[in-house]
Amino acid sequence: MTHYSPREFRALTWHDAVPGFAAGTATPRGYLEGCLETIASREPVVRAWVVLNEAGAREAADASTARWRSGRPLSPIDGMPVGIKDLLETRDMPTQMGCAAYEGNFPRRDNAAVWALREAGAVILGKTVTAELGGSHPGPTTNPFDPARTPGGSSSGSAAAVGARMVPVAIGTQVGGSIIRPAGYCGNVALKPTQGGINRGERQATSMSTHGPHAGCLEDMWQVAIEIARRAGGDPGRLGLFGPATPPPARPPATLAVLEAEGWALLDAASRTVFETLLDRLRAQGVTVLRRGDHPLLQAFERSLEGVQALTNGITAWENHWALRNLIAQQPEGVSQRARGVVALAEAMSPEDYRMLILQREELRRRHAALAPLAEALIAPASPGPAPLWAGDVPGQPLAKRPTGDAVYNTPSSALGAPVVTVPLAAVGGMPLGIQLMGQPHADAAVTAVARWVQATVAPVVG
Amino acid sequence: MTHYSPREFRALTWHDAVPGFAAGTATPRGYLEGCLETIASREPVVRAWVVLNEAGAREAADASTARWRSGRPLSPIDGMPVGIKDLLETRDMPTQMGCAAYEGNFPRRDNAAVWALREAGAVILGKTVTAELGGSHPGPTTNPFDPARTPGGSSSGSAAAVGARMVPVAIGTQVGGSIIRPAGYCGNVALKPTQGGINRGERQATSMSTHGPHAGCLEDMWQVAIEIARRAGGDPGRLGLFGPATPPPARPPATLAVLEAEGWALLDAASRTVFETLLDRLRAQGVTVLRRGDHPLLQAFERSLEGVQALTNGITAWENHWALRNLIAQQPEGVSQRARGVVALAEAMSPEDYRMLILQREELRRRHAALAPLAEALIAPASPGPAPLWAGDVPGQPLAKRPTGDAVYNTPSSALGAPVVTVPLAAVGGMPLGIQLMGQPHADAAVTAVARWVQATVAPVVG
Repeated sequence: MTHYSPREFRALTWHDAVPGFAAGTATPRGYLEGCLETIASREPVVRAWVVLNEAGAREAADASTARWRSGRPLSPIDGMPVGIKDLLETRDMPTQMGCAAYEGNFPRRDNAAVWALREAGAVILGKTVTAELGGSHPGPTTNPFDPARTPGGSSSGSAAAVGARMVPVAIGTQVGGSIIRPAGYCGNVALKPTQGGINRGERQATSMSTHGPHAGCLEDMWQVAIEIARRAGGDPGRLGLFGPATPPPARPPATLAVLEAEGWALLDAASRTVFETLLDRLRAQGVTVLRRGDHPLLQAFERSLEGVQALTNGITAWENHWALRNLIAQQPEGVSQRARGVVALAEAMSPEDYRMLILQREELRRRHAALAPLAEALIAPASPGPAPLWAGDVPGQPLAKRPTGDAVYNTPSSALGAPVVTVPLAAVGGMPLGIQLMGQPHADAAVTAVARWVQATVAPVVG
Repeated sequence: MTHYSPREFRALTWHDAVPGFAAGTATPRGYLEGCLETIASREPVVRAWVVLNEAGAREAADASTARWRSGRPLSPIDGMPVGIKDLLETRDMPTQMGCAAYEGNFPRRDNAAVWALREAGAVILGKTVTAELGGSHPGPTTNPFDPARTPGGSSSGSAAAVGARMVPVAIGTQVGGSIIRPAGYCGNVALKPTQGGINRGERQATSMSTHGPHAGCLEDMWQVAIEIARRAGGDPGRLGLFGPATPPPARPPATLAVLEAEGWALLDAASRTVFETLLDRLRAQGVTVLRRGDHPLLQAFERSLEGVQALTNGITAWENHWALRNLIAQQPEGVSQRARGVVALAEAMSPEDYRMLILQREELRRRHAALAPLAEALIAPASPGPAPLWAGDVPGQPLAKRPTGDAVYNTPSSALGAPVVTVPLAAVGGMPLGIQLMGQPHADAAVTAVARWVQATVAPVVG
C-alpha cells in the first residue's frame, strides 16, 4: 500500500529540474527515462495509460536535450513529458476515448492544445485513460494511493499518472467534474480554467468543457496552461487565458468565502472536520472566512446553486446527444449502458427545456459575479470526501450510480464557467482530499496566486 | 439564356403545394419527381450537386406520401425535398467539403440540422456544392441565370439549386458571406439566423458560422428554419432561434436605416440607382428611411464598421487554421492554394491579435445594439452588384481574388451575429440583386415579418 501522507508525499515536478538542464547537469532525456522507469514499475497496477509512444518521446526528449545544450529551449517546459487524456486527438497515437465504438480510431491530427505543447517543446509521452467519452463509465485505472479505490473520472489516467509520479503534468478535461475531482482524489494540483480559456480544438460540442493541466506543483500547472494559451489561445470567440508568462507569485487573500453548495450535506464527518480545521488555520493566518450566513448575497448564491447538479447534467446530456446518437446508430454495441442513459435523458428534453437551463445558468453566473467584491475566492473541498472504493459493476445488478465518485463539488464551477485550482491540502483515512479555490471568470492567475499562498502557508491537515 | 426578371420569375415553392397533399390531389412523391426532372434538365450546366440520393429520396417521399394520406404528416415540411451543403455530415451520403483532401469522406453521421429535418419528414435529396471548406476556392457550380457568372459562395450549390428551381429549399452556411451573397446572386430568399440560432452539430469551430435556409419564398424559408430549431435547438450554450411555429405575418416597419458599410463605395452605378429607387418606393409606402447622416449613433456605427472585412477575415482565419494545419500535414496536395493562404494569414497572428479582434467585434455589437430604438431593421444590397463573371483561374496567372464575389455586404452581419433576410427585390443587367434586411440578435422573426411586408408591398426594381 502507498497510503497518502500530504507531509511525506513528494510529487514529481519539472520546474526545479530546469536549472539542471540549463547548467548541463541534467537532461530532458534523463528526466524522461526516470518517468519511464516509474511507469514500468507502477503501471501494472495503476493502469493510467491507453498507449505510450516511448520511441517518439525519446526522440523528442533528445531534440529537447540538444536545444537546452545549445542554450535555445523553446520554452520553460521544453522537454517536459506530458500525458494527454485520450479524448484529445494526437497525430502520432490513436484517440479511442475509452469507448469501444472508437477502438482503433486514429485521425492523425493534433488537438490545438497538443499542437501548442509540441511547439513549446513538450514531450507527448502517451494517451491517458478517460472514462468513456468523458462521461461516467469508468476505464481500468486505479487510484495510485489505493488500488481498491477509483482515481476519479473522467480524467482518470491523467490524475493517476501524476499521482503515481509517472509524469509531472497530464492534460485533463472537465465538463461536470472531470479535472478537479480526480485531481483531488489523486493528490494532484490542477487548474480547471475559465470556460474558453484554453483552445479545445475539435472538441467544441459542449458549452461547459475545458482543457486543464493536472500537475505535481502549482508552478508546473501554471506554466503548462500559459504555454498552451500563449500559442493556441482560447476557444473560438473567447478571449483565452489571461495571466503572466511565468507562475504568478503567492498572494495572501484578505477574504475567502466558503462554498457549501449541494455537497455540504454529503460531506463525510472526517472530511468536514479536516476542512473546518483548515479554515481555522487560514483564520490564524489573518484570512477572513465568510460563511453563507455572513452575507445575504452569499446566502442567495448558495440558494441558487440548489439543483446545479441536475442543471449541468441536463445541459451536458443535451449537448452530447447529437454525437452520441450518431455513434449508437453506427455501432449499437460500441456504447455503454451509461452513455445510453445520457441519450435517454436528452431525448426527454426539448430545445425549450435546454433554453430554460441556459437561462438558469446565466442567472447563476450573475449571482456569482455579485460576489466579486466580497471575497478573492470561494473555498471548498474538491469532493465530498476522499476517493470511494470501486470494485467494478456487479453482473446482474443495477449499474453503480457514481463509479468515479460524486461531482457535486465540481458542477458549480463548471456551470459558472469559473476558474478553479485544487491543492492537496488534506488527507482523510490515508487518502488525499483536495481543497479547491474558485475565482471569477478570467481570474485564473489570481486564484493560482492565492493557491500558492495557501499551500506555502498552511500546513496540510490529516484526518 | 435564362436571364432573370423579378416580375416573371416564379421560384419553386412548397407551402402552396401542402393543401394538395392534405387533400390528396398531390403527393410528395410527385413533387419530388418534378424536382428530379428539373435537375435532369438543368444540372449539366448548373452543376449544383455533388451527389444525389435519388433512391433514398424516393423512399422518403413515399413514406411522406403515406403519412399525408393517413392525415398524420410529421410537420408542414413533411416530404419537402431539401439540398444539404456538402459541409454538413449526412449519414447516407459522403461529406467531401469541396476539398480534395476529403475525397470519399463518409462518416455516416447526421449533422444535428439534418437529423432535425429528417425528424420533420423532409426528404434529404442530395449534397450541394460548397466552395472548398466553406472558403473562397470555388467549385464547378454556375449561376442559374447566366452560366458565365458565379453563383456566389461558399453555399454555391444550395443557392444555384434553389435559383434553378431544382428544390424549394437548400441548407447553406455562412461565416463571412456564404449564405446571403449567393442567395442574392441566384434570386433566392434566405435567412442567415442570429449567431447560434440553429444547432451546427459537429461544425462548431468558428465563432461566426451559422446554418441557414435558401428558399424560393419566405414562408418556406421560415418554416424550415423553425422546424430545425424546434427539434435541434441552437448551438451549445445558446438560446436558439426564437419565433412562431408558422411563418410570421407581414408587418410594415415604421423606420428602416440604410447600411452603407464598406460596400457603399464599391456598389456599381446601376445597382446604386436600383437601390435608391427601392428606397423611394419604401418612402412612398410610408416608411421612414434613415441615412448615415441622419443620426449620430448611425454615423458612429458606420464608422466602426470600417475594417470589418479584415476583422472577419482575421477571426475566421485564426479559428480555421487549427483544422487546416492538420489537413495540410496529412494531405499536402489535397488543399488549395487559397486555403493555404488562410493558414499563412493565421500564422502571422498571435492569440493576443485574435483577442484584440474579438474585443473589437464586441464593441461593434454594442454599437449595433444602440441602434435598436432607431429602426426596426437595417437595409442594404446583399452584394455590391449582381453576380460577377467567372471563367476560372488562368494557369500561370495569380489566383483571382474573389472568384465567388465580394462579401463586403455580408461581413457586417456575420461580425455582429445579427439575423439577415435577403429578398430578390431587384435586377441589374438581367441578373438578380438581393436586398437584405438586418435585425438585432434574436429578431429573426421580426426581420422575416418586415421582409414579407416589403416583398408583398414594393414592386421589384429592374435596372
